[in-house]
Amino acid sequence: MKLERIRNSDLHQKIMSAEQACDFIEDGMTVGMSGFTRAGEAKAVPKALAEKAKLNPMKINLMTGASLGNDLDKILTEAGALARRMPFQVDNTLRKAINNGEVMFIDQHLSETVEQLRNKQLPLPDVAVIEAVAITEEGHIVPTTSVGNSASFAIFAKKIIVEINMLHQPELEGLHDIYIPSYRPTRTPIPLVKVDDRIGSTAIPIDPEKIVGIVFTNKSDSFSTVSEPDDETAMIAKHLVNFFEQEVAEDRMPANLGPLQAGIGNIANAVMMGLLDSDFKDLTMYSEVLQDSTFDLIDAGKLSFASGCSIILSERWNTQVFNNLDKYRDKLVLRPQEMSNHPEIVRRLGIIAVNTALEFDIYGNVNSTHVCGTKMMNGIGGSGDFARNAHISVFVTKSIAKDGAISSVVPMVSHVDHTEHDVDILVTDQGLADLRGLAPRERAVEVINNCVHPDYRPAMLDYFERACERGGHTPHILEEAFSWHTRLETQGSMKQS
Amino acid sequence: MKLERIRNSDLHQKIMSAEQACDFIEDGMTVGMSGFTRAGEAKAVPKALAEKAKLNPMKINLMTGASLGNDLDKILTEAGALARRMPFQVDNTLRKAINNGEVMFIDQHLSETVEQLRNKQLPLPDVAVIEAVAITEEGHIVPTTSVGNSASFAIFAKKIIVEINMLHQPELEGLHDIYIPSYRPTRTPIPLVKVDDRIGSTAIPIDPEKIVGIVFTNKSDSFSTVSEPDDETAMIAKHLVNFFEQEVAEDRMPANLGPLQAGIGNIANAVMMGLLDSDFKDLTMYSEVLQDSTFDLIDAGKLSFASGCSIILSERWNTQVFNNLDKYRDKLVLRPQEMSNHPEIVRRLGIIAVNTALEFDIYGNVNSTHVCGTKMMNGIGGSGDFARNAHISVFVTKSIAKDGAISSVVPMVSHVDHTEHDVDILVTDQGLADLRGLAPRERAVEVINNCVHPDYRPAMLDYFERACERGGHTPHILEEAFSWHTRLETQGSMKQS
Ligand SMILES: CC(C)(COP(=O)(O)OP(=O)(O)OC[C@H]1O[C@@H](n2cnc3c(N)ncnc32)[C@H](O)[C@@H]1OP(=O)(O)O)[C@@H](O)C(=O)NCCC(=O)NCCS
Ligand SMILES: CC(C)(COP(=O)(O)OP(=O)(O)OC[C@H]1O[C@@H](n2cnc3c(N)ncnc32)[C@H](O)[C@@H]1OP(=O)(O)O)[C@@H](O)C(=O)NCCC(=O)NCCS
Repeated sequence: MKLERIRNSDLHQKIMSAEQACDFIEDGMTVGMSGFTRAGEAKAVPKALAEKAKLNPMKINLMTGASLGNDLDKILTEAGALARRMPFQVDNTLRKAINNGEVMFIDQHLSETVEQLRNKQLPLPDVAVIEAVAITEEGHIVPTTSVGNSASFAIFAKKIIVEINMLHQPELEGLHDIYIPSYRPTRTPIPLVKVDDRIGSTAIPIDPEKIVGIVFTNKSDSFSTVSEPDDETAMIAKHLVNFFEQEVAEDRMPANLGPLQAGIGNIANAVMMGLLDSDFKDLTMYSEVLQDSTFDLIDAGKLSFASGCSIILSERWNTQVFNNLDKYRDKLVLRPQEMSNHPEIVRRLGIIAVNTALEFDIYGNVNSTHVCGTKMMNGIGGSGDFARNAHISVFVTKSIAKDGAISSVVPMVSHVDHTEHDVDILVTDQGLADLRGLAPRERAVEVINNCVHPDYRPAMLDYFERACERGGHTPHILEEAFSWHTRLETQGSMKQS
Repeated sequence: MKLERIRNSDLHQKIMSAEQACDFIEDGMTVGMSGFTRAGEAKAVPKALAEKAKLNPMKINLMTGASLGNDLDKILTEAGALARRMPFQVDNTLRKAINNGEVMFIDQHLSETVEQLRNKQLPLPDVAVIEAVAITEEGHIVPTTSVGNSASFAIFAKKIIVEINMLHQPELEGLHDIYIPSYRPTRTPIPLVKVDDRIGSTAIPIDPEKIVGIVFTNKSDSFSTVSEPDDETAMIAKHLVNFFEQEVAEDRMPANLGPLQAGIGNIANAVMMGLLDSDFKDLTMYSEVLQDSTFDLIDAGKLSFASGCSIILSERWNTQVFNNLDKYRDKLVLRPQEMSNHPEIVRRLGIIAVNTALEFDIYGNVNSTHVCGTKMMNGIGGSGDFARNAHISVFVTKSIAKDGAISSVVPMVSHVDHTEHDVDILVTDQGLADLRGLAPRERAVEVINNCVHPDYRPAMLDYFERACERGGHTPHILEEAFSWHTRLETQGSMKQS
């Protein structure tokens, strides 16, 4: 059974334990691992590596697609094994280490990491550790539930360790579409013109000589922890669906909206669920991560095709999808994150991008990453790849957080991930602000009237009016711009007492 | 002579005065005009329009490529003729009106304006006013010294007024390459793969029926006002040339660097002049605006091809280039700004992007537009189009401004146009900071050591160290982050007394 998964029999001799495979990873090395939004990460080698680091202190520079599952970011952090980490994470323990300055975190647009490797602007991985369902006759690697950066990591690394996870169905083979842009100066257009185009291969083409170890595992991906829509997220979804209906009515969007992208997390998932109760059909997705809502929409006959770079599901949906892959096979493709997020394609296809903000300000600037301007939450992820070039760039957030101690709409964001130039629509449970074609002073009125929670509206209006008295294209009172944040830090609430 | 410029003789009957042409422009209309960085703007109709508005108050929404020359933005502002203005400007009088909230200014990525029009996300122009050297047999419009947004404005407008400027050489015909992306969802890749590829037509294809008026003019473009390199800008150029040499030595850039983009203004021009004294050859440009330095480099045999969307020159170079067009013809192309700045092409070609910051901060965020966070300078222009997808994104600025009262490196920028994710290299007269692959705390050390003026270095280090004590991925002291700016506003200098 196991050996059938390694169809190139020369490679059978490379089978070893995770501990043995770890011998290829040395202190100071740069390691590229599979894994994206807690799907398809190598499971055994990182764990063995943490054990090794606990005995003999060592640190690596770890690159992945995005976040690792099965608490691996936590385990590696606790073992002191991480010197540097890029380009994304969502783990509480690692987050603390980053914010304490113990792990150097490089927060990147997710389409750009492998471009920077290709151009030698980042150190190339010494070793790649890639989860696979199989190795082909040619010695090529068939990824599992995410592609992420795995293809380029394997191509760039000097040595490759493959983890074959027997728990993943072999039927995953065929789901992937691995396309790698050619080198400049002879790079050609990416030939993808429709969400369901296949332009690459189903396995990662590498020289099998580079495979130094093959480890068998048998462990599930983590299940997603998205919560059911609540009153606020349902309201956000409702405002957005109303907006889409208007756009179609006014002929600014086609009847099926155009390819949808939805960010990670609870709110984006809830927004997609909102489409379930709408009249829209023939929807498509060209997104990064496919969550439960993707499959709800497929099963409801509303979504005809979904392109992503990873699939992360709740336990219920996980069983449903991966035990019935034939049902979904012709409606799915998984691509490298460079392709799922590529600005060339995002602009060409005219994506409807929906991402979640931590906070946004009255002029339309968005903070996706830094709590009170300093503490990293997760990272910018792919939100910038999509927002910049989308047909419409939407950011959603609840109007308040932490039982109202925080207003997620603020006078000035404490960190900018998406500038006013890249934001078209803002939505909270309170309503929707359409910023297209508006000057900053006009945007502020839209945002204050439609998005700010009533508890904070008078204070916001007061700030804006006093700022306007001082003048400027984008009126602000610099010495007060962050007073809501500093009040939160010193008094536990943004509310004026 | 004049009639030869209108090769479609049916259109001869449309010749009229600028005043008559103005009758097509009514109060409240949206007007799209040619003109980019003060090159190739329609000259007579806007002026006549200002006169008309002075007599009978009226306001229009004015869209252009970028800034207008011949003081037209000033004249229109003074006439009270502007309700809204997009997407860029550089005029002192208009700037004041914007900052007073009298003219609503929509500051945009310059590649995006026509995309938003195409998708009906902005009101389409009622009238387009386009400067031309000629109208072809088919009734198509041959632009002059800029293409900007002229092609799409003419295509979208219900009515077109053409200004044929007899002072422009008819030999300009053939220099332009007009390519317009098709509509989604059937949009195809842009076929441009080399800086000198020609993928479109030499004139703007429109239905000649839409031409309602043709006005003859005879007035020069404004001459550029860039100043000669000074000690600081020469140092900036020197640091950058050294860096390029290193990149080539370490095989991260090809020997001819890759296609260069250089922003507007004195500093970017000086940086390009710095290449004149370097050993680089076979350089190419894929840029927005072509300034004097482009032709200095061509004449020195260092630059083999320059693609842009406008040409703005000093008086000396203006005569030299436009009276010797045959000499430069095979080394030049002018494209629509959507193409000169297109993210798809910028990423494909691997542009070396050099743009000027007003200020940047220790973590690599760049402010290109807002003085003290509120007052609009010019606009973001194309800097974001290039910086986001460039092979290398460089921002340059002098370390101090206004005789040292301002440090252009600050603890936190007062407005963000380019986030840390989009900035690789920062350069001042003091030195160069290479931020690639660094976490924020590491970037701060690079910037403080290499870019900050010595007068401000101790205070900056002190801020950073105290911020680090508070912790966070990007350490800041929020209540102090803008203290340098507020000190400037209240005491006239950022220096601590
Ligand atoms: C912004 C982001 C953290 C929101 O996540 P989410 O699960 O949808 O939203 P939630 O409302 O559950 O908020 C998550 C947490 O942030 C907190 N929060 C929300 N707004 C906040 C604010 N303005 N200030 C501080 N904390 C805030 C919430 O209280 C919650 O805290 P908890 O985990 O302690 O309960 C998440 O979407 C993200 O990391 N985005 C950036 C990356 C990205 O956009 N990727 C998508 C590209 S495909
Ligand atoms: C940033 C920009 C204004 C710099 O222009 P420049 O001509 O190269 O630079 P200069 O040093 O001459 O500075 C211009 C003015 O800004 C002032 N200035 C510079 N730094 C400043 C700062 N940190 N705070 C306030 N003013 C500052 C200068 O003193 C000068 O003022 P003056 O006109 O009163 O003399 C200009 O490049 C710009 O508008 N950039 C944004 C658009 C863009 O990048 N387009 C390129 C895409 S192709």
